[in-house]
Amino acid sequence: MNTRFAPELAVTRWFNSPKSLTLAGLRGRPVLIHAFQMLCPGCVIHGTPQAQKAHMMFRDSDLQVIGLHTVFEHHDAMNPGALEAYIHEFRLTMPIAVDQPGEGTPTPVTMRRLGLRGTPSSVLIGRDGSIRHHGFGQEDDMAVGALIAAAIAEKPFTPALAAAGTDDADACTDEFCPAP
Amino acid sequence: MNTRFAPELAVTRWFNSPKSLTLAGLRGRPVLIHAFQMLCPGCVIHGTPQAQKAHMMFRDSDLQVIGLHTVFEHHDAMNPGALEAYIHEFRLTMPIAVDQPGEGTPTPVTMRRLGLRGTPSSVLIGRDGSIRHHGFGQEDDMAVGALIAAAIAEKPFTPALAAAGTDDADACTDEFCPAP
Amino acid sequence: MNTRFAPELAVTRWFNSPKSLTLAGLRGRPVLIHAFQMLCPGCVIHGTPQAQKAHMMFRDSDLQVIGLHTVFEHHDAMNPGALEAYIHEFRLTMPIAVDQPGEGTPTPVTMRRLGLRGTPSSVLIGRDGSIRHHGFGQEDDMAVGALIAAAIAEKPFTPALAAAGTDDADACTDEFCPAP
Amino acid sequence: MNTRFAPELAVTRWFNSPKSLTLAGLRGRPVLIHAFQMLCPGCVIHGTPQAQKAHMMFRDSDLQVIGLHTVFEHHDAMNPGALEAYIHEFRLTMPIAVDQPGEGTPTPVTMRRLGLRGTPSSVLIGRDGSIRHHGFGQEDDMAVGALIAAAIAEKPFTPALAAAGTDDADACTDEFCPAP
Repeated sequence: MNTRFAPELAVTRWFNSPKSLTLAGLRGRPVLIHAFQMLCPGCVIHGTPQAQKAHMMFRDSDLQVIGLHTVFEHHDAMNPGALEAYIHEFRLTMPIAVDQPGEGTPTPVTMRRLGLRGTPSSVLIGRDGSIRHHGFGQEDDMAVGALIAAAIAEKPFTPALAAAGTDDADACTDEFCPAP
Repeated sequence: MNTRFAPELAVTRWFNSPKSLTLAGLRGRPVLIHAFQMLCPGCVIHGTPQAQKAHMMFRDSDLQVIGLHTVFEHHDAMNPGALEAYIHEFRLTMPIAVDQPGEGTPTPVTMRRLGLRGTPSSVLIGRDGSIRHHGFGQEDDMAVGALIAAAIAEKPFTPALAAAGTDDADACTDEFCPAP
Repeated sequence: MNTRFAPELAVTRWFNSPKSLTLAGLRGRPVLIHAFQMLCPGCVIHGTPQAQKAHMMFRDSDLQVIGLHTVFEHHDAMNPGALEAYIHEFRLTMPIAVDQPGEGTPTPVTMRRLGLRGTPSSVLIGRDGSIRHHGFGQEDDMAVGALIAAAIAEKPFTPALAAAGTDDADACTDEFCPAP
Repeated sequence: MNTRFAPELAVTRWFNSPKSLTLAGLRGRPVLIHAFQMLCPGCVIHGTPQAQKAHMMFRDSDLQVIGLHTVFEHHDAMNPGALEAYIHEFRLTMPIAVDQPGEGTPTPVTMRRLGLRGTPSSVLIGRDGSIRHHGFGQEDDMAVGALIAAAIAEKPFTPALAAAGTDDADACTDEFCPAP
């Protein structure tokens, strides 16, 4: 894993988003990923309300907040249907992705790619796609606000290929090659 | 329903208790019933931690705290298996009962008998079996502590039949007739 | 000092009370003394709001809450005039007494008599005048509510004269003379 | 009063600072002014701890946090000696200035210049000396963190004369004339 650049999301289902989001598609914008489990106390009580607050507070900026349901235990209890009820009852409105289950391991794919130690975890990605902050456990609101604002304050990223003049959306980037 | 005396529990499964508890069997002791749903925000954040705290704080008294999982919505997401995971993750140690599902209604049986308006609800039952307090929503810790202590302070109830000298546990009481 | 019975208050000034209160005069009622300093962080943030809440919550009982300003440092900054401004700004309505300054010691008289270790301290006195609880530092609301309710729940105190052998319920006590 | 640029401080005494600070001298750095009174509940409980937290959290940046004691009532109770005791007891380490008393008005000079409505108030000043944020009452930690970080993220201010092409460090600026 490249520790500097955020690996792509692997998602099986989205809530609160009309379309699938990808980090590649969000390049140029700051992204806050909040990794959580719906039955994780530190998530329910602190982390997820904090991420939802950031989603609301920075809604006039180009920050993208993404909740990532990284289930690594109690898979039956935290299935997508249960998550949907949870999102409804807790009135979460940020886009929330279901991390792709791992094969032969309880740890889901994106969680493994990001090297997360558990939940709640936060990953703040800069406009250039690099990881600016990696938090685990309860984080201070003032610090989170400052980290996000610093990421927003950077000038919007101009992707190299675009700067070079191509409009070819089908061309490979250093992140991926789109299928034809 | 007799509004003064607490109706009996109807329970399909117990957690954190080696045996089934009944209000009849607890007569003479004060009982705090905390009705909750595992995906109810006001329960998860306030009510259930408060009930668990009461369970710990009064453990040297004869107060009996009972969590009652009164699922009236999202029944699939809040099934007993999911509740078991919730209890484990939130480290709840008080006895917790699954309220018996209603027939032809989403409201479970004990919840209906108690006339609860929703979750979280608390029902404090005195030593004589009467309802001393009925709360709905967030309740103040100081008030809850005072209500419980007042119920504990009453002299233990002496059941009429016992006073009359019978040890016949199979005899009818004014609450129920045990099946042979 | 008799450790079981609460020593009398020594007070130079009262706020929020039309008359001076004494523990002798309050015998038969439970009393909560909240010892504080207006510039003590643990008092301002936790202890004093908690005592004020108890004053409001139990106002229909015969509990008497007393704030006791036990200044043992920064005497100039915490003079009675400053305390008056503090009481006004923080909207305290419980009776508040200024502890009598000590002679040749920074510790005031009642604070020394009670053997307090610092502020905030709470002393809960039962109907019989005995100390039921002695707390120092931050105390849990639920525990405080329970302690107060237990003290309230006790039967009213039977004055010493009765204990000394008289059964004459019509006799004067040191509190009152009953009409024939 | 120029509403865009922050007026200069008028201060009679400094605590926690070996020298007097001026906004002129801080030009080029972001400055957070926290206006408070030591007997203002909203300051003691929320505003002042928040400012102190910002002082600590951003100590590796060039943000300057300044507490400004803007006494407009109870002047006797909140004199500088009492403030000194307050600062000591509440362990405040940010620089704190005593706002200059007004003449013929209870409102102190800097408070009037800034047009503050009361306490707690916060004024965030950008590197160019302009007021970026003006808050009154309780403010959210996440928002405060974001506002500060945005002010820090701006490139350091380049004074107009320098931009106009002079490298003469001995020339007068619109702020001061250096001695030869």
